[in-house]
Amino acid sequence: MAVRYAHVAHNPGAVSEADWGVAHKKKIGMTDTTYDNSTELDPRIAARLKRDVKGLVAAVIQQYDTHEVLMVGYMNDEALRRTLTTGRVTFWSRSRQEYWRKGDTSGHVQYVKGVSLDCDGDALLVEVDQVGAACHTGKRSCFLEGGPLPVVEGHRPAEQQNGLS
Amino acid sequence: MAVRYAHVAHNPGAVSEADWGVAHKKKIGMTDTTYDNSTELDPRIAARLKRDVKGLVAAVIQQYDTHEVLMVGYMNDEALRRTLTTGRVTFWSRSRQEYWRKGDTSGHVQYVKGVSLDCDGDALLVEVDQVGAACHTGKRSCFLEGGPLPVVEGHRPAEQQNGLS
Repeated sequence: MAVRYAHVAHNPGAVSEADWGVAHKKKIGMTDTTYDNSTELDPRIAARLKRDVKGLVAAVIQQYDTHEVLMVGYMNDEALRRTLTTGRVTFWSRSRQEYWRKGDTSGHVQYVKGVSLDCDGDALLVEVDQVGAACHTGKRSCFLEGGPLPVVEGHRPAEQQNGLS
Repeated sequence: MAVRYAHVAHNPGAVSEADWGVAHKKKIGMTDTTYDNSTELDPRIAARLKRDVKGLVAAVIQQYDTHEVLMVGYMNDEALRRTLTTGRVTFWSRSRQEYWRKGDTSGHVQYVKGVSLDCDGDALLVEVDQVGAACHTGKRSCFLEGGPLPVVEGHRPAEQQNGLS
């Protein structure tokens, strides 16, 4: 199967934000404007979520243009509703047991560019424009802070070298 | 703060796998070869993990060269040990309650290129070379299968337009 993202073919850094937005909406076929998240998470979205025992789903935060994975946070229904409707990422803080609008304290705001749900409803991919550091330590990404673990690399065999098969 | 990944500056698709591997190891400063994951997860790594009530940490799976986020899975200590040492991604399947070496049934193998832990030890970023579809539905990514949710986009104000601040 040769499914590829359109953005692979060009240099993402060269795309203006406006062009990216238009292309992205076209790519994802987002034409349904009938969802109502104004006071609570639209029931059609809520029905698709598979929450953990604490009522949360994992949210992977990715810089929308460079595609760096910045961090993982958690959202309950209301945090997701706020993320979808306010242009700013809001998590549920498991340690503080409160809503956490990223950047309110640090200034390191995450502006929302897109949110996708995964196939089984227990993970979100949130594309953002991250101001400054995503990690509380000051590193751009939480994975740069924690750092690499020692791995034995794997390699696809020669017969699978040409494209995705 | 103007921290950037080296790979942002060029077209990822143009980098050979060998060049990427060398640059990546240099970037991450991986010189410590004293870890021993041969029979159990090295205690120094195990001590850094912050597991959920089921003993699991989230693993974000990202295609190493295009930087697509493909899926999220979960690993216990042994699944992580196998992922670090065999060149193949192994999850703990929460639904089947068994180890799940990705691709054994579908052929859609994930070859391991790098694994990083996050700042607080409860999430892993696993860079892979994904053969074919990551999603069990046949889609390249589980987030393409679930698809986009309706969002109100956010935009950084004009004074933050120039680089990361």
